[in-house]
Amino acid sequence: MSIQTIDELPTPSLILDRAILSRNLKRMSDRLRNAGVMLRPHLKTAKSIQVGRMAVEGHDGRITVSTLAEARYFAGGGFKDILYGVGIVPAKLPAITELRRRGVNLRMVTDNLAVAKAVAAAARDGDTFSVFIEIDSGAGRAGLPFPEMPGLLDIARLLHAAPGVELAGVMTHAGHSYHQSTPEGIAAVAEQERRAIVGAAEALRAAGIPCPIVSAGSTPTAMHSADFTGITEMRPGVYVFNDLDQEFIGSCGAGDLALSVLASVIGHYPHRNQLLVDAGALALSKDISAQEFQPKVGFGTIAGAAANGIAVVDCSQEHGFVGSDKPLPYGDLPVGSRVRILPNHACITAAAYDRYYVVDGDLDGGRTVVDVYDRINGW
Amino acid sequence: MSIQTIDELPTPSLILDRAILSRNLKRMSDRLRNAGVMLRPHLKTAKSIQVGRMAVEGHDGRITVSTLAEARYFAGGGFKDILYGVGIVPAKLPAITELRRRGVNLRMVTDNLAVAKAVAAAARDGDTFSVFIEIDSGAGRAGLPFPEMPGLLDIARLLHAAPGVELAGVMTHAGHSYHQSTPEGIAAVAEQERRAIVGAAEALRAAGIPCPIVSAGSTPTAMHSADFTGITEMRPGVYVFNDLDQEFIGSCGAGDLALSVLASVIGHYPHRNQLLVDAGALALSKDISAQEFQPKVGFGTIAGAAANGIAVVDCSQEHGFVGSDKPLPYGDLPVGSRVRILPNHACITAAAYDRYYVVDGDLDGGRTVVDVYDRINGW
Repeated sequence: MSIQTIDELPTPSLILDRAILSRNLKRMSDRLRNAGVMLRPHLKTAKSIQVGRMAVEGHDGRITVSTLAEARYFAGGGFKDILYGVGIVPAKLPAITELRRRGVNLRMVTDNLAVAKAVAAAARDGDTFSVFIEIDSGAGRAGLPFPEMPGLLDIARLLHAAPGVELAGVMTHAGHSYHQSTPEGIAAVAEQERRAIVGAAEALRAAGIPCPIVSAGSTPTAMHSADFTGITEMRPGVYVFNDLDQEFIGSCGAGDLALSVLASVIGHYPHRNQLLVDAGALALSKDISAQEFQPKVGFGTIAGAAANGIAVVDCSQEHGFVGSDKPLPYGDLPVGSRVRILPNHACITAAAYDRYYVVDGDLDGGRTVVDVYDRINGW
Repeated sequence: MSIQTIDELPTPSLILDRAILSRNLKRMSDRLRNAGVMLRPHLKTAKSIQVGRMAVEGHDGRITVSTLAEARYFAGGGFKDILYGVGIVPAKLPAITELRRRGVNLRMVTDNLAVAKAVAAAARDGDTFSVFIEIDSGAGRAGLPFPEMPGLLDIARLLHAAPGVELAGVMTHAGHSYHQSTPEGIAAVAEQERRAIVGAAEALRAAGIPCPIVSAGSTPTAMHSADFTGITEMRPGVYVFNDLDQEFIGSCGAGDLALSVLASVIGHYPHRNQLLVDAGALALSKDISAQEFQPKVGFGTIAGAAANGIAVVDCSQEHGFVGSDKPLPYGDLPVGSRVRILPNHACITAAAYDRYYVVDGDLDGGRTVVDVYDRINGW
C-alpha cells in the first residue's frame, strides 16, 4: 500500500487508532484471563476480521456475533466457535446448518419453547445444533426474567433430550449497566448479572441437566465486576473501540477512544456561532446515548485539547452542525480544514462505513494510514 | 428472477411498494409540471438508479445528490445534470473534475468566498465548473442568511468573472418546514423560502449578474406551496417514499408510505407487554423525527390495521422492543412470524440496506417480490 496520510482521505471517513485499540484489547484480555474467565468478544462493534483476530489473542478464539452476515464473514475468516447472540427463529435454521456443515460451531440463542421444539425437530433431520437459553438478568430485553425464569426447565429438558441438540449453557447481557456512571453502580449491576446467570445454571444442574457454559457480559460489567464466580465466559463488545458513552459510564478513560470520524469543515456561520461539517446523521448516526450523562456532547465531540467543549450539536443527513458555549475558533478551522469527531456510540457510528483507515497515535500522532481493515455490514 | 414472496426473504429486509412509489412520484411530478417548475429530485433518499429514472420521467433528467458516491453512481446510470447539494471544499474538486470530464454536468454549492476563490483558481487550470450560491431561507443550516446575505455579491462577482466558471444560480432548502404540521404552516414556510431565494436571485440580477436557476424545495414546501413565482426548479427528496414524519407533517397521507422494514418476531415478553423483533437500531436507525408530533410512534410503527397502536418503543443494535398501550396480540404474532415496520425517517432507515425488495400492493397485497433495486451507500 502506498504511503497515505489522513489529509489525503476522503471525508467523511472512519479512523481507527491501532495504538488505542491494542491497549483496549490487552486491558480486557488480561483482566478476564487473570480472573480465570474465557473471553468471547462480541464482534458486533468491530465487524472486522482483523480486529477479531487481535481481540482473541491469548484466548481460545470463541466469539459472539449479532447477525448471520457476521457469522458467515467470521466463519470465512477462520473463526470456529461463534455464538449468534440474537434470538433465533426457525426460518434462520437453514443458514445455521449451512455454516455448521462447514465445520463451524455456530451456536444460537432462544428463550422460547416453541422455538426450542422447532430446533429439536430440525436436528432430527440429521444436523446438529448448539443452543444457549437466554436469561434476563435485569436489562428487560431478551431472556427469561430472573428469578422466575418461567418455562426454563421445560425448554432445557426439551433441548437436553433432543437427539443432535447440545444445550450449551445459559447466557445473559446486563445492558442496564449502560445507565450507570460509577464503578460502584456498575459493580452492583455486574453482581446482579452474575447472580442471575449463575442462578439459572444452578437451576438446570439441580434438575440434572448439564450446563457447561455460563455466559455473561457487557463492557461495563466486564470492566468493573468484583466477582466472576460461576461465570465461565464474558462477552464484552464495545470495549475494543470505546466511545463517549463508555467514557461517561466509566468503562474507560478519555484517552481510550480508538474510533473517530474524519470530517471537513464546509461552512462558517458566525451569526449563530456555528460551523458545518460534512459528517451528519449518516456519518455519525443519530445515536445520542452519551447525552444521558453529558447532554452537551450532542452527536459527537471534536477531538483534541484545543477543541474542548466543541461538539456536533445537531445533524441532518449529510450536515453536522458544530457549536460551542464559547466563540468558535474560526481561524483555526477554515473551510476545507479537517476535524476528527469522537462518536457517541461506536457500534452504531461504525455501521455506516465499509472500512477502517488505521492510524497509530504512538507513531506520528496518528497522521499516517498504516493499514485498512474491512467491515461486514447488513444482514 | 425466480418467483419469491416476502415470506422467503431474510429479516431484516427493506421492502419497497412499487404501487405507492409510482403514485408518490406522479403526484409530485404532475404538481410541479402544472406549476411550470422543473423537478430536480433529491435522490439522497432513494439512492437508486431505478427509482431515479422513474422520478425524472416527464422532466428533463436533472437530479440532486448528497454525496460524491451518489454522483459517481448516478453518472454511471446515465444522469447528466447532477447537483451535489452539500457545500463543496477544495479537496473535493478533483472528484468533481473527474466526472465533468466524462460529460456529466456535476454542479456544486458554496456560500464561502475562500471556497469560491479556490474554485476559480482550479478552473483556470482548464477545467470548468458550475456553481450555485446557497442561501439560508430560515432553516439555519447552510447558506448566506436572508435577507442580509453577507458577502453574496462578492462571491457572485468572483464566480461570474472567473474564466471557466458558470454561476448557475442560487439554491436554498427550507428544512424548517419539517417542524410544521398543518398545510397553512407549511405554506407559510414555503412562501418564506420563495421570497428568500427569489430575493437572492433579484439581488444578483440588480447587480448585473445573471442568475439562470432559482432552486428551492423540500418535500413539505413542494407539496403545499401556494406560489412558485420566480422559482425555476424544486428539489424534494423524501416524497418518493414518504414516512411517518412526512405523514404527521402532512406532506402525505397514511396510505402513501412506500417503504417498510420486514422483521421477524424473536421473543415474547408478556410480563412487560412487549415482544422483540430482529430489527433494531441498525435496521430502523435511531432517527426519531416523527416523535416531534406523535411521541408514541417510537422508532417505527407496525403496519396493518390490526396493528393499530403497536410500535417499536425502544431499540438496541439488533433488537427492536415492540409495545402498545393495549395488550399485545401474541396469538397473532408468534415467534417466527413477520411484521412490516413503517420508518420514522425513510432517508436514514434506508441507508442501512444495499437493496430494495420491490413488491406491489396493487397486485397481490404486496406479497410477491417483483423486482430488486440496488442502492449506493457510503461516500
